[in-house]
Amino acid sequence: MNQDLKRYTTSDFDEFPKEFRRNFMNCLSGFKSLCLCGTMNKEGLPNLSLISSVIHVGANPPLMGMLMRPETVQRDTIENIRKSGVFTLNHVNPKILEAAHQASARYPTGVSEFEETNLTPLLYDKFSAPFVQESVLRIGLHFQERHTILANATTLYVGKVVMIEVDEEVIRKDGFIDLEGLGSLTASGLDSYHSTNQIKRLSYARPGQISSEL
Amino acid sequence: MNQDLKRYTTSDFDEFPKEFRRNFMNCLSGFKSLCLCGTMNKEGLPNLSLISSVIHVGANPPLMGMLMRPETVQRDTIENIRKSGVFTLNHVNPKILEAAHQASARYPTGVSEFEETNLTPLLYDKFSAPFVQESVLRIGLHFQERHTILANATTLYVGKVVMIEVDEEVIRKDGFIDLEGLGSLTASGLDSYHSTNQIKRLSYARPGQISSEL
Repeated sequence: MNQDLKRYTTSDFDEFPKEFRRNFMNCLSGFKSLCLCGTMNKEGLPNLSLISSVIHVGANPPLMGMLMRPETVQRDTIENIRKSGVFTLNHVNPKILEAAHQASARYPTGVSEFEETNLTPLLYDKFSAPFVQESVLRIGLHFQERHTILANATTLYVGKVVMIEVDEEVIRKDGFIDLEGLGSLTASGLDSYHSTNQIKRLSYARPGQISSEL
Repeated sequence: MNQDLKRYTTSDFDEFPKEFRRNFMNCLSGFKSLCLCGTMNKEGLPNLSLISSVIHVGANPPLMGMLMRPETVQRDTIENIRKSGVFTLNHVNPKILEAAHQASARYPTGVSEFEETNLTPLLYDKFSAPFVQESVLRIGLHFQERHTILANATTLYVGKVVMIEVDEEVIRKDGFIDLEGLGSLTASGLDSYHSTNQIKRLSYARPGQISSEL
């Protein structure tokens, strides 16, 4: 039954070359969300970073989280969130995939990833973080709380959703947003990008009942 | 430019019907990982739950996290992890999609979702949590730490990866696991399931350099 599956344990992991291990372990969590995180520093310079660790935290209040790498190097995004208290998350679609990937390059502080990637910062009064104009699902958040994972010094940043801009046509009657219709992409590992094909929606599962297609 | 996007703010959210709001907010985070979480109680009854909130936490040590709903109702998975200290995450593929969805039904404590869904628990000596035999990417974890989100009482459970079983053929030379080759699925919202189409892998992004396809 399982002859075809290869087993790896901790002692194997320790023998993996560093790059192999990084790629391998980054794939285990499955497909990931793909967002551009917009922030602004106190001089008004807009900053952009590519984030694949966004999770849904709650619907009421509406909360989202993102896990950030340890702050051992300069992290403009984190610094800006701490000072301004706000950030944006903008879904990545095929038209801006290369620009989004480029936003993951480590530009020095003082350089705006918007300029470097030719993405357009969209700024609104009373909200001190830029949205990405080329994105068709844009979310504005107020920083809420953060939690540091003791095991490796990564930090979960949780924000409260205060504003959403989205193409109304992809919103179904029951509130479901057709992300595939928007062209939102998903990522795997450190560098792989994917579009999706909806298989189906299934009705709420109950014991002893077969769910139907929605 | 943006005329086509509809804007929603907090006062709009508050007017959304409850079900609409749940669906809508659950879509914002983008595409999600889709795993079956296996645990076992002290009587040896295997438990299974469907989790769409798994994130990569780190490669060295290898860490993964999953966000769990508030513990206001009986949560067998959480209870079992606390007592046994271990759990498994098993990727969902098309062959077990309906069974995986059914595992999200709220069965009473004392009923095994394995039996109810006809999935096969795979048990190994010295590891007190069942893997899902029908999954072709199975991960065994030791519970490491947990963090409660103050804003809504959800809890991030972090585990250390100690064992992986995967089809060797989908592992690339650089450690990248071809999840698409495995048939791993992704989810959106509360109930939508999707397969993926790889667009491309892009080389590590550096300032002033165009990434090439890997």
